[in-house]
Amino acid sequence: MIPGNRPLKSRFVFRLTVLAFAAVMAAPSSAVPAPRIDGLVNLMPVPASVTAGDGRFRVDEGLAVLRAAPAELKGGPKDRAFRAAARFMTRLAGRTGLFLKQDFLASQASSADGGIRYSFGSPGRLVPNEDESYTLKIEPAAVVLEAKTDLGVLWGFETLLQLLSADEKGYYFPCAAIADKPRFTWRGLLIDVGRHFQPVDVIKRNLDAMAAVKMNVLHLHLTEDQGFRVESKTFPKLHELGSDGMFFTQAQIREMIEYASDRGIRVMPEFDIPGHSTSWFAAYPEFSSAPGPYAVERHFGVFGPAFNPADERIYPFFDAFFKEMAGLFPDPYLHIGGDEVEGHQWDANPAIQAFKKKHGFADNNGLQAYFNSRLLKILIKHGKKMVGWDEIFDPSLPKDIVIQSWRGPKSLVEAAQKGYQGILSNGYYIDLCQPAEEHYLNDPLPADSPLDDRQKALILGGEATMWAELATPETIDSRIWPRTAAIAERLWSQASVRSVDDMYRRLGPTSIALEELGLLHLKNADMILRRLAGGPQIKPLQVLAEAVEPLKGYERHGQAEYTSLSPFTRFVDACSPESMPARHFRTRVDEFLAKRDPVLAEEIRTHMAGWRQNHALVLPFLASSPALREIEPLSLNLARACEIGLEALGQLAKGEGQPAAWVQEKSAILADASKPAAHAELAVLKAIGRLVEACGGPAK
Amino acid sequence: MIPGNRPLKSRFVFRLTVLAFAAVMAAPSSAVPAPRIDGLVNLMPVPASVTAGDGRFRVDEGLAVLRAAPAELKGGPKDRAFRAAARFMTRLAGRTGLFLKQDFLASQASSADGGIRYSFGSPGRLVPNEDESYTLKIEPAAVVLEAKTDLGVLWGFETLLQLLSADEKGYYFPCAAIADKPRFTWRGLLIDVGRHFQPVDVIKRNLDAMAAVKMNVLHLHLTEDQGFRVESKTFPKLHELGSDGMFFTQAQIREMIEYASDRGIRVMPEFDIPGHSTSWFAAYPEFSSAPGPYAVERHFGVFGPAFNPADERIYPFFDAFFKEMAGLFPDPYLHIGGDEVEGHQWDANPAIQAFKKKHGFADNNGLQAYFNSRLLKILIKHGKKMVGWDEIFDPSLPKDIVIQSWRGPKSLVEAAQKGYQGILSNGYYIDLCQPAEEHYLNDPLPADSPLDDRQKALILGGEATMWAELATPETIDSRIWPRTAAIAERLWSQASVRSVDDMYRRLGPTSIALEELGLLHLKNADMILRRLAGGPQIKPLQVLAEAVEPLKGYERHGQAEYTSLSPFTRFVDACSPESMPARHFRTRVDEFLAKRDPVLAEEIRTHMAGWRQNHALVLPFLASSPALREIEPLSLNLARACEIGLEALGQLAKGEGQPAAWVQEKSAILADASKPAAHAELAVLKAIGRLVEACGGPAK
Repeated sequence: MIPGNRPLKSRFVFRLTVLAFAAVMAAPSSAVPAPRIDGLVNLMPVPASVTAGDGRFRVDEGLAVLRAAPAELKGGPKDRAFRAAARFMTRLAGRTGLFLKQDFLASQASSADGGIRYSFGSPGRLVPNEDESYTLKIEPAAVVLEAKTDLGVLWGFETLLQLLSADEKGYYFPCAAIADKPRFTWRGLLIDVGRHFQPVDVIKRNLDAMAAVKMNVLHLHLTEDQGFRVESKTFPKLHELGSDGMFFTQAQIREMIEYASDRGIRVMPEFDIPGHSTSWFAAYPEFSSAPGPYAVERHFGVFGPAFNPADERIYPFFDAFFKEMAGLFPDPYLHIGGDEVEGHQWDANPAIQAFKKKHGFADNNGLQAYFNSRLLKILIKHGKKMVGWDEIFDPSLPKDIVIQSWRGPKSLVEAAQKGYQGILSNGYYIDLCQPAEEHYLNDPLPADSPLDDRQKALILGGEATMWAELATPETIDSRIWPRTAAIAERLWSQASVRSVDDMYRRLGPTSIALEELGLLHLKNADMILRRLAGGPQIKPLQVLAEAVEPLKGYERHGQAEYTSLSPFTRFVDACSPESMPARHFRTRVDEFLAKRDPVLAEEIRTHMAGWRQNHALVLPFLASSPALREIEPLSLNLARACEIGLEALGQLAKGEGQPAAWVQEKSAILADASKPAAHAELAVLKAIGRLVEACGGPAK
Repeated sequence: MIPGNRPLKSRFVFRLTVLAFAAVMAAPSSAVPAPRIDGLVNLMPVPASVTAGDGRFRVDEGLAVLRAAPAELKGGPKDRAFRAAARFMTRLAGRTGLFLKQDFLASQASSADGGIRYSFGSPGRLVPNEDESYTLKIEPAAVVLEAKTDLGVLWGFETLLQLLSADEKGYYFPCAAIADKPRFTWRGLLIDVGRHFQPVDVIKRNLDAMAAVKMNVLHLHLTEDQGFRVESKTFPKLHELGSDGMFFTQAQIREMIEYASDRGIRVMPEFDIPGHSTSWFAAYPEFSSAPGPYAVERHFGVFGPAFNPADERIYPFFDAFFKEMAGLFPDPYLHIGGDEVEGHQWDANPAIQAFKKKHGFADNNGLQAYFNSRLLKILIKHGKKMVGWDEIFDPSLPKDIVIQSWRGPKSLVEAAQKGYQGILSNGYYIDLCQPAEEHYLNDPLPADSPLDDRQKALILGGEATMWAELATPETIDSRIWPRTAAIAERLWSQASVRSVDDMYRRLGPTSIALEELGLLHLKNADMILRRLAGGPQIKPLQVLAEAVEPLKGYERHGQAEYTSLSPFTRFVDACSPESMPARHFRTRVDEFLAKRDPVLAEEIRTHMAGWRQNHALVLPFLASSPALREIEPLSLNLARACEIGLEALGQLAKGEGQPAAWVQEKSAILADASKPAAHAELAVLKAIGRLVEACGGPAK
């Protein structure tokens, strides 16, 4: 037996209580490799229902996969479920190193005694509220995956892969019966390719990652002040003059849509208008509300340029443009942005003022609602439903539009109460480098929701938003993953699945598993450090990076005048938005303060001693690399804080305290050390501060 | 002053003697970061002429780049040199972390007092023997890059980036005058996308890497028994039935060609016929020399299926096919393969035998020459020159074909003596995991070449060949880089540049620099180990991997029945083809044996002690990961060998020896330990063996 891998002797059912089970089976966290344990406790997102069974389905080189039904689809074996089965086998071979005998690229097994049998009723349509459910029955002799549509088959294969387990005899799937379906139908990730262009390979690998955690909407934010990122054959000046040559060709768009569709993912395009549109005006200054010329914006923020709703010429332009885009993007929804119209251009334009007066618009909101109503007609004409940010919400619009809330759950509730569909993004802004925990506990339909059942059904789901002011193709994966897996779980799993500790425990193996899909979120940190160091030896930089996180929220923008041409190759860009070692340290400190366990004290001491001595090892790097010199305060402050922390810990371990003046003095030093440096901050200071404060409390 | 960074006080010239200079400036190799030193000693490939000067051109945020001439090209600023300048600035910002002020994506500086000025005479054509020369003059106040064609500008920017240096004041380019041009005009890399498909992103990042070391021909091996990898609109069954869905669309081909052209790189397609063609017959069995049906081949080797040269129907087929491909690929050359026609199908086909007899062909070579002569007419008709492997060489063919030698330099010499152009690939088979040194010393025109000057001019250059039986998109970068940089230098630099130690010294920073282009050669090793370990803690596996290399040559094929569906995700796939730490250890052992320096003894002892104790740390990984269990013998044998090595070193350090029986016994153990395991071998055993043998020699 492998330690930690307990056989399940009795068959028991747990519905929505997998977490209790998980807690029993949790692997100890330590520096030695965790024994691989029964995959049932690693599932992410947690399925709706899991019944653990007896026994193990052995995975060996003879494993075969067979489609039981429907036997043939139009197009022969090369349909979506077939390709998903082939990818499943490739990934299974990759994880196990097994030379699977089946030629799974060419055909499924003709019979699969002892193999994996999958079946479904019909091909799924990529629209909201399509059936994505599946059941998975794993018995010692066979695995059966059944679904209403092939979308369920896709998700079932992802679940099965997550179940891969190992014991002394080799690999296996643990016997279980799983019945699963999503809580929300709209589980999205927005990728902003406007502010920093993200090429096809970035999109493809993120589509693979989305599928791995059962997300089903890629929201491509295609146009921004900083770039117009899609080829228009109707108006080629748009991409020619608005993109610096960095745009998707229509062939690439089709390639990405096909890739996404193959993975059960819709691709919804966003063309953000009437604001956020400077790049359009590089080609068509005449459509803006103030005289040009315009150039693609390099800075970040909310800018003045906006389309002129009073200029009748823009509507035939949008008619022709959206006709083209409606043909390019098959998704039933088209997102028109609509956020943050800054208003200065409108206010300063006499013709627009006259137009407002003539139509009786009380304010710019009225003008924008007019613009949206004109656009809506165009979208309907071309067969699309409209989606937009909070600002598009206006009671004059019909009920089949979708409101995407970036401003807060309140606006979503208000829209639902008036009969509008909504998706939540407020609280899912992953670009802001906040902890997964915050996103995880942010529910589109919280327990205290004031909505009735009919209104609740209008909340379609949510979207993680990866705004890309500060993210390049090198760093974007680490800004999205693994934290977005927590959001994926919030949107798929039942509302009662809310254990933060268990979520973090499962985030670890999930993050490792994402790497097989080509994601760079883990490996690019070392690469950036190697580049900065100019060589392969980077250990002291890695040690420092463990204790550091990028500044949160919009704080980083205050540190430098960032533009789309700035380098995002500094130390801060190698730091994870949420350092797992730092979180581990904080957790251990809190446990120690609660229990005063000497074993925990020793672990904390080792951490702090390592960070304290690290500064001397960092210094030679600063001498050789000017780009690294900015991290000296971080490294020094960490060493100083650990010096204080070690002193505090020493006292606490002896059951002694410190005078209040000492606590005050050291807390002040820690507060000083917590100032930003190198656009980053130390992520362990508050925990060290708690050690210091504890010294002022009653001795234990 | 940073240690090791000596200012150049006197101006001196060194032409083809940069290596002596490099030796003086070489950074010490150690575990602490090497101080960044004057970039002049890191250039790879070494330029034809380098004159070091006084002073430093400072790189700061105000740096500007300006095109001095020609002022305007057709298409405005968005030409190749402009884009190269923009990429240069992006990479420079990335390396330095500097927020460069110039908007280099939109326009060049209008004046560049103190900036970088580049100019060229005319756009270069992507054909052999085009002028690629450039001069680079770096003075404290300005950098001037001049070239006959924009190709020279591209290479000059690569050189300038390599020159980036740092001191206590920040970043700088060292003053110097460089006059550079390539020794050979054909500096290629073959990527085999047939045996394992390599998607567009793999090709693009490798194009970037090629440009970084001034290679200028991407040879795409597009068809193989295992796959037909290009969309044919004329004969769509070819890619539909021959590729398992893994092929380049024509849009993707055009995209890659444009990307390559932008980097000064030709793309030459290869369609390997009449053998190596099973995948074609999945679509058109009737064109083969034996009855079908055929399926895409999964195994590797030399297979029977071959086109039937006696079947008149194949010529109109090839006429239409090559017409389409000639339109798709603008390169003047088209490679028809022609290697390893196995012959069984021809011998067994009575119609072919009758055809041979009728035409008086003595053997199958005669038949293939006939086939080639028919093909040649087709290629000429469609405006292409023919390239093929050794086997196509036949005196009946005209003199403007090009012979690519995989069998040896002898065939290249023979062809040149008969007036044929040739390129060398024998000795550049990077897929065989041999040391860079072997490729580096392999010269297309060795000093003892029997060719006269006119014949020598027929040797156009060479190509590294990345055959892909054992390489996937995850591992291919590590199989190509950094070793291919040594071949790039052989083909670019003067023949006298041959210091192996200096090449390896420069390969280190070159390898790190390649990462900024997206290459995965360094970072994917850890990724594979994390996947195998199932977690982020992989140190013992990394330590073992340092001492291990994949089996060389074709030995790995003897270890398992590899197919195109096999997993290449095992421990061996995380091992570098040439371990730099293992080479360092071997070098140190040899130095110690020569000098008996106790400092060296200590370093060797530390290495061996680490490897010896590593085995106990590896064992827990084997318990949790069945896929890792195969490495137990490697790990155990390394520990045992180090036990022996430490014993030998202890004796030698005392100036004592061991009895001959001891030497014999221990050598036998080492020989036993050198057997392959996990498809890999230990790369430090011979060095340990030398320590053992030294114990039997005269005491020192």
